[in-house]
Amino acid sequence: MIREGGLKPMDAEQLREYGHKMVDFIADYYKSIENFPVLSEVEPGYLHKLLPDSAPSHPESLQHIFDDIQTKILPGVTHWQSPNYFAYYPSNSSIAGFLGEMLSAGLNIVGFSWITSPAATELEIVVLDWLAKILNLPNEFLSAGQGGGVIQGTASEAVLVVLLAARDKVLIKVGKNALEKLVVYASDQTHSALQKACQIGGIHPENCRLLSTDASADYALSPAVLGEAISNDVANDLIPFMLCATVGTTSSTAVDPLPALGKIAKSHGMWFHIDAAYAGSACICPEYRHYINGVEEADSFNMNAHKWLLTNFDCSALWIKDRSALIQSLSTNPEFLKNKASQANLVVDFKDWQIPLGRRFRSLKLWMVLRLYGLENLQGYIRNHIKLAKHFEELVSQDPRFEVVTPRKFSLVCFRLLPHNDEACASKLNHDLLDIVNSTGKVYISHTVLSGKYVLRFAVGAPLTEERHVNAAWDVLQEKASTLLGSM
Amino acid sequence: MIREGGLKPMDAEQLREYGHKMVDFIADYYKSIENFPVLSEVEPGYLHKLLPDSAPSHPESLQHIFDDIQTKILPGVTHWQSPNYFAYYPSNSSIAGFLGEMLSAGLNIVGFSWITSPAATELEIVVLDWLAKILNLPNEFLSAGQGGGVIQGTASEAVLVVLLAARDKVLIKVGKNALEKLVVYASDQTHSALQKACQIGGIHPENCRLLSTDASADYALSPAVLGEAISNDVANDLIPFMLCATVGTTSSTAVDPLPALGKIAKSHGMWFHIDAAYAGSACICPEYRHYINGVEEADSFNMNAHKWLLTNFDCSALWIKDRSALIQSLSTNPEFLKNKASQANLVVDFKDWQIPLGRRFRSLKLWMVLRLYGLENLQGYIRNHIKLAKHFEELVSQDPRFEVVTPRKFSLVCFRLLPHNDEACASKLNHDLLDIVNSTGKVYISHTVLSGKYVLRFAVGAPLTEERHVNAAWDVLQEKASTLLGSM
Repeated sequence: MIREGGLKPMDAEQLREYGHKMVDFIADYYKSIENFPVLSEVEPGYLHKLLPDSAPSHPESLQHIFDDIQTKILPGVTHWQSPNYFAYYPSNSSIAGFLGEMLSAGLNIVGFSWITSPAATELEIVVLDWLAKILNLPNEFLSAGQGGGVIQGTASEAVLVVLLAARDKVLIKVGKNALEKLVVYASDQTHSALQKACQIGGIHPENCRLLSTDASADYALSPAVLGEAISNDVANDLIPFMLCATVGTTSSTAVDPLPALGKIAKSHGMWFHIDAAYAGSACICPEYRHYINGVEEADSFNMNAHKWLLTNFDCSALWIKDRSALIQSLSTNPEFLKNKASQANLVVDFKDWQIPLGRRFRSLKLWMVLRLYGLENLQGYIRNHIKLAKHFEELVSQDPRFEVVTPRKFSLVCFRLLPHNDEACASKLNHDLLDIVNSTGKVYISHTVLSGKYVLRFAVGAPLTEERHVNAAWDVLQEKASTLLGSM
Repeated sequence: MIREGGLKPMDAEQLREYGHKMVDFIADYYKSIENFPVLSEVEPGYLHKLLPDSAPSHPESLQHIFDDIQTKILPGVTHWQSPNYFAYYPSNSSIAGFLGEMLSAGLNIVGFSWITSPAATELEIVVLDWLAKILNLPNEFLSAGQGGGVIQGTASEAVLVVLLAARDKVLIKVGKNALEKLVVYASDQTHSALQKACQIGGIHPENCRLLSTDASADYALSPAVLGEAISNDVANDLIPFMLCATVGTTSSTAVDPLPALGKIAKSHGMWFHIDAAYAGSACICPEYRHYINGVEEADSFNMNAHKWLLTNFDCSALWIKDRSALIQSLSTNPEFLKNKASQANLVVDFKDWQIPLGRRFRSLKLWMVLRLYGLENLQGYIRNHIKLAKHFEELVSQDPRFEVVTPRKFSLVCFRLLPHNDEACASKLNHDLLDIVNSTGKVYISHTVLSGKYVLRFAVGAPLTEERHVNAAWDVLQEKASTLLGSM
């Protein structure tokens, strides 16, 4: 008889007791979240000093761990869920998303192939069809045809997998030794994930064309500039193979002109990818849907439900018109994973649509968000944030010491404090303002640079943010601007 | 005044109420998990027929969603947490891991850079140092020097990032147009993730040398075979750049001879990676630690805490001796992410150690596992599974109709039903046995092929598995074998 006993790591009653405590801890955290400085105030290396050098030999109590979370972990957290968080882009938490993440962690399946939990694959297919319909994506992106949707971890992974699919599709034609000739196009406002995908996929960095944009077109990619770049490259015996357009760039929510760009991509046989990581969520509202007009021309389209659609991180939705291109690049078929359903081609195995083999049951959280809230509430949620951003934009416009740098489209406002007379010190001035404002702990905003100008970014989108938080943030900005300008 | 109201997606009291319900749901699921067929019995496409074609416009009740989970989702789940799950390798759930995942989902930070939540980066550094010490890894893998640990999602991502680091390290020396000359070495038992990493990184598939192994060396890679392959390639003007050894292969837990392989890798200036995704967990016990002797020679080492170390999926621990090699390959530095701490090189930004930009606060779950259970209990947990596997191996050996195909090392038993007299029908016989056994719903096992033989895999490792489950599984196997043999 083998000795049983010892550790009971899945004891149902202990799970119940401890799980309830953790739910209460998180509920209490949300209740008190405004009491924390938004941006963590710890110094580099702070935690090393607070924790032992090695793991314990014997169990510690849950209470001891909770105490450490409270006193050692939370001070080192930057509170993305704070209503006063306006940095980068939001990372939405919601009760529905949280419940979905809980259930996924509890079932703890690894859904690489259909057989390893058919519900995981099939719910993902169903829910991504739902979201595609909400976004009014072309039918070719639905699962019924040759395409379909898949949940990636991040937009970085989404652009990487389509770059690999596009790369391999052209290399099959021109021979794999032509890798060094492949050229990808995008604007200089495109997320750095594209460059990283090039590095990973072996596209030469000098063949990653990040074409110049400027304020005259609100930092959108010019079809004329693109056409010229392609002509030059073709004349130099290079091979244009992919165009990445963005709807809602990270710096300033620029929107590339999809219809014109799509035509150019098509005429050169290039893969056309659309990155709408942030702004895609806005397109669930009919009045913002026009921003993705032209998506009919695209080979792939990506938006992050984990940014602004209440689905806890990570949940990046990628749709593709020709799923066989992804599978061609990313499939493996080791003996130990073979099974009847896969061998008979009766099912989708999402391992062949992504970089990793294993995958979590992430569709649960998106499914629960769509059902527990319903489309109309989600539209109202987006509209409210856009209204709040518009309100902030108006506040900025009314203060002559500030300027709105680019016209607001969604829920991001790009603005800056104007220099007295010397443009040269404007960067330092705004950099200082950013630092001072963030170090109050009352608000967290981030920055970018547009046409050489240091610009502050105020991104509305945290689920708890209300008008009073926007007003309070503006008060802090005004007050600190006065101090800064006064001291000059 | 902007209209507030409408959706309250982070209402603390609703989170509390709904969260408690979900905890109870999961606790009840664990209590009743033996009532479900281990392998889902649904047909391909089952869920599409049960769910509406589009998302609801209006909110649905939580009860409605729970009902659907019970009646529509759970039937499509393959129960990795069932005590009767013996397929592939385990994917351990635990209360501690679950709590960590809950907290991570609740805080919902995106920890790409230190500044975005210092605790996320720093806890990961601390906890991976803890685990490195538990595994008695060489000091060069600790964060205090030039190396360090990082949590990847999967072993696939781990081998990909080190392949990219190794690739770029050599390309800097020999020129990037030499990509087609780079050769990677591993045994034919190596996980398919290596081939996938080659596909992604542009290593030519014919330069991925999967060297033959056989039963005479228990499917371990022979240093002599490796040496010969390298000599041939060098003679043909190719460039050996990476060796991937495995401790505990997926098919049969083969262990490559690390010390001898490491010396060869070193003498050719190759990157030496060790994949101990499954068996690494066993090495927390002193009596199994010898299996990774030779790790001192490695440039990188990987094990999956999410397989057999009670940390809910995903949590793949990767250590590297020269972190600058990873950063060289994977870093980006867009303006919108710049911040004082990063620019001053005071901190680690894990975005530069991985494929995606965003990352979850995954160290919480590993931290909670190590603290809530303690090392001694974790060692006992591993030892118990190995004892159970040994017990199963003995049961198989005692039945002359079966054979144990490879000597058991850890908690996997490779075995098969012997054919009456015709070896040719052995594959079909065992394939049929697998199907029949799995379709009982009482047990789920998987298979592989070794030296052309179709082999059944019995992997002990689910947290709820006790001796009675192993005995019951063996009863099912014996009974179905009798039926099969009787019908021939």
